Amino acid sequence: MTETNPTADTRHRRVPERGNHDFERACAIIDEARVCHVGFTLENQPYVVPMAVARQGSDLLVHGSVVSRLITSLADGLPCCATVTHLDGLVLARSSFHSSMNYRSVMVFGKAQPITDADEKSTALDALVEHLAPGRLADLRESSRKELNATTILKLPIETFSVKARTGPPSDASYDIDLPVWAGVIPLTLTEGKPIGAPDMADGIPLPDYL
Amino acid sequence: MTETNPTADTRHRRVPERGNHDFERACAIIDEARVCHVGFTLENQPYVVPMAVARQGSDLLVHGSVVSRLITSLADGLPCCATVTHLDGLVLARSSFHSSMNYRSVMVFGKAQPITDADEKSTALDALVEHLAPGRLADLRESSRKELNATTILKLPIETFSVKARTGPPSDASYDIDLPVWAGVIPLTLTEGKPIGAPDMADGIPLPDYL
Repeated sequence: MTETNPTADTRHRRVPERGNHDFERACAIIDEARVCHVGFTLENQPYVVPMAVARQGSDLLVHGSVVSRLITSLADGLPCCATVTHLDGLVLARSSFHSSMNYRSVMVFGKAQPITDADEKSTALDALVEHLAPGRLADLRESSRKELNATTILKLPIETFSVKARTGPPSDASYDIDLPVWAGVIPLTLTEGKPIGAPDMADGIPLPDYL
Repeated sequence: MTETNPTADTRHRRVPERGNHDFERACAIIDEARVCHVGFTLENQPYVVPMAVARQGSDLLVHGSVVSRLITSLADGLPCCATVTHLDGLVLARSSFHSSMNYRSVMVFGKAQPITDADEKSTALDALVEHLAPGRLADLRESSRKELNATTILKLPIETFSVKARTGPPSDASYDIDLPVWAGVIPLTLTEGKPIGAPDMADGIPLPDYL
């Protein structure tokens, strides 16, 4: 399977200023994501950990709590790469070789810094929640100091990054075009299903408008 | 946001034999995936690259072609981690702290080996295509020797891995249960849209049954 219609750029870009086209493109991809994959190496072993993601201005916020040993190491300032990927479609060409996928992806390179200030952490946690469910935040109580202390949120500046994407139909070899084989794209979308209320919820609480 | 209902296991498991419960669980998660994120470090810089994925017995097959410098380095036997993640739902708790996500994830650790034998590579490429679109392979011509030479497919044994998942409703703090706030899960599914035929396709070619 080939990347037949790449708009790939595997160079790292240094984008110090806002308003840059590549920066805007990276932000648009990040803003659609709920999860990113953060990679780093610890004692010669690479790890790739799925983490909740949001953007706060020109910072990527990432949050995870299970793998605390990993997150603690990451917060110590290890070099890392946070990758956001949207799989947009299966590209079915007339050959295996030219079959591909449509996707949009951003790799952000740098060192993750833990947010230590309580107010800043509270704002970042709010940004994560609001990103995942816009409108949700107004319904929630404030986080307590104890909760904030138990939360690790890392920020990674969106400065050195690479945007890659593939769009459009298959790009078959010219000698394959006339083969009597269906070719095209199967679009893929992450879709929300019907909300499932918690079993311990009191009767009569309506589903909020934002859901 | 916390992992309030974790079935996490961050230890690496060595699973030499088949038929193991954890192995079967990892395979089920992998078999549902189209993309994995492969992480490795080159010259002190971690990279996390989205790649097409399929399983062939107890091997993970990964395929990517854009970032050839990266793939070439990876094929040289760098330690890597390939992570498959399904995002299954947004878990909306009564607090930011207990909000979470439902997901299933497998991290596979090891060294990726390129498949060099032409027959083996052809079989692996077929497995990738058939995995992405079951039934598709019968419609496609065989790959040529030239195409196989231009293809890099890596295999990574599913031997050392870690399965993580979160399922179910939010797990709020007991003192939050009676808050008059809707709580629950928004399910998320990657869904296929209506197939889009290639513009260069001859008239009268029907959509195959497998699509």
